[in-house]
Amino acid sequence: MTRIAICAPGKRLEREHADAVLDLAQERGGVELVFHRQCFERHGHFAGDDETRLEAFLECANDPDVDAVWFAAGGYGSNRIASQAIAGLGDAARSKTFLGYSDTGYILASLYKAGIGKPVHGPMVADISRDDGEAAISRSLDWLTGNVSGLEAELDERPTVAFNLMTLAMLCGTDLMPDLTGHVVCVEEVGEYLYAVDRLFFHVTQHLSDIAGLRLGRIGAVPENDRPFGMSEQEIAQFWCERAGIPYLGLADIGHDAANKIVPFGVASEALRA
Amino acid sequence: MTRIAICAPGKRLEREHADAVLDLAQERGGVELVFHRQCFERHGHFAGDDETRLEAFLECANDPDVDAVWFAAGGYGSNRIASQAIAGLGDAARSKTFLGYSDTGYILASLYKAGIGKPVHGPMVADISRDDGEAAISRSLDWLTGNVSGLEAELDERPTVAFNLMTLAMLCGTDLMPDLTGHVVCVEEVGEYLYAVDRLFFHVTQHLSDIAGLRLGRIGAVPENDRPFGMSEQEIAQFWCERAGIPYLGLADIGHDAANKIVPFGVASEALRA
Repeated sequence: MTRIAICAPGKRLEREHADAVLDLAQERGGVELVFHRQCFERHGHFAGDDETRLEAFLECANDPDVDAVWFAAGGYGSNRIASQAIAGLGDAARSKTFLGYSDTGYILASLYKAGIGKPVHGPMVADISRDDGEAAISRSLDWLTGNVSGLEAELDERPTVAFNLMTLAMLCGTDLMPDLTGHVVCVEEVGEYLYAVDRLFFHVTQHLSDIAGLRLGRIGAVPENDRPFGMSEQEIAQFWCERAGIPYLGLADIGHDAANKIVPFGVASEALRA
Repeated sequence: MTRIAICAPGKRLEREHADAVLDLAQERGGVELVFHRQCFERHGHFAGDDETRLEAFLECANDPDVDAVWFAAGGYGSNRIASQAIAGLGDAARSKTFLGYSDTGYILASLYKAGIGKPVHGPMVADISRDDGEAAISRSLDWLTGNVSGLEAELDERPTVAFNLMTLAMLCGTDLMPDLTGHVVCVEEVGEYLYAVDRLFFHVTQHLSDIAGLRLGRIGAVPENDRPFGMSEQEIAQFWCERAGIPYLGLADIGHDAANKIVPFGVASEALRA
């Protein structure tokens, strides 16, 4: 029986989404989901104040009877607790998988920097609300129970990470940022104008000049602007990669959608053996 | 007669706004405005492609018969040409004032880093379209013709800069970023959710730990979110300043509005003597 603890470092989770995912887990068997009560708290923008979210994360991560920590949702806010979260981790956290994406990338990055646990980019509980959301949830439950069929298809022997582009931009140069020298960096974005995507690429490519290359995930739900930007997201990524001397390695099968694939941080084949 | 050249490093200018500002300048006398034709060009999001905008900037900045370069508008795009813009400047640029704000902060920052000319934060031509826009335009024309009444009231003997918060966040850690050690840094923002403002403060305060202090301009036109953020913009600024050990120095009289005041980069009293 794989025991998975769920907390919400940013946005709160709707009860109905938790219930739907619990039903799915029960049907498949072999997996127990433990929702921390903090998932459903409210404090302004967040699922509880910083202290509440931090404590919930540490209770999940430091519980020796838990195999993995699964993040309930993104939203915004994990950056506010990430430093203290890492500082509070004990031995029981070291062997765990931590699974999420989007805003929870601040914590995944911090774990990766600290060399603690196995940070993994993949669907979160709240993705159940998407079209075809059950497929997304099953992909993460598969991964957490040892089935690797949801792995992003083009991962190779180079260490790889995957981030929301805004999250990565905000991480650059901060004390949460891991050394990504020699890494393949996959990025995706949602709900940003293409001019803002261009601006983010300007920023991140200057910080990532020593990476092995960049792969472009989906840039979803781009708002319509009063004038067309004039370049596609692929042209934007290629433009800034070229300026920074970063190899552009093509598309990545990640995004804010139900098709979002699994990207374990580091070398995928090593993550499978571990 | 003060001769002012106008170009648009990002967004194009509307003819009617140029005409309205020309009328104002003619009424006051003593100042000649020269609009570069590039101000009115179109290329996707931009007032002409990168090469066109770069050339226009260099023609204005390197013209020995021009006293000041005034930016037509912000928008987005000056970061795409800023490095080449600095590299292309000759002796005639060294004594000029360069006046703008918002997206043109990428060029102001680059000039300040290179020690070329006098970069100044203040209203741009396109501000004529705001409520009370004539006051904003007059403030900049006053400054460009030697009248200092539009100066931000709380400037002191410490070197000071003023930036749009997003622009500053994107500058951090890039090759355009000046050394702001010991500076008072004023920031303003417009049209961003408070959670995004919080996220930007997380980023910039980590990059600015050695500044003299931070002053908060207006955070305007905040979109309504599906839930309240739970902190005001002042509380956000104070929170992140405290975490980074940066003195929070109170409000600054700048913003995306007609009341936006003049902030010469560096020590204001030296800018007045120069």
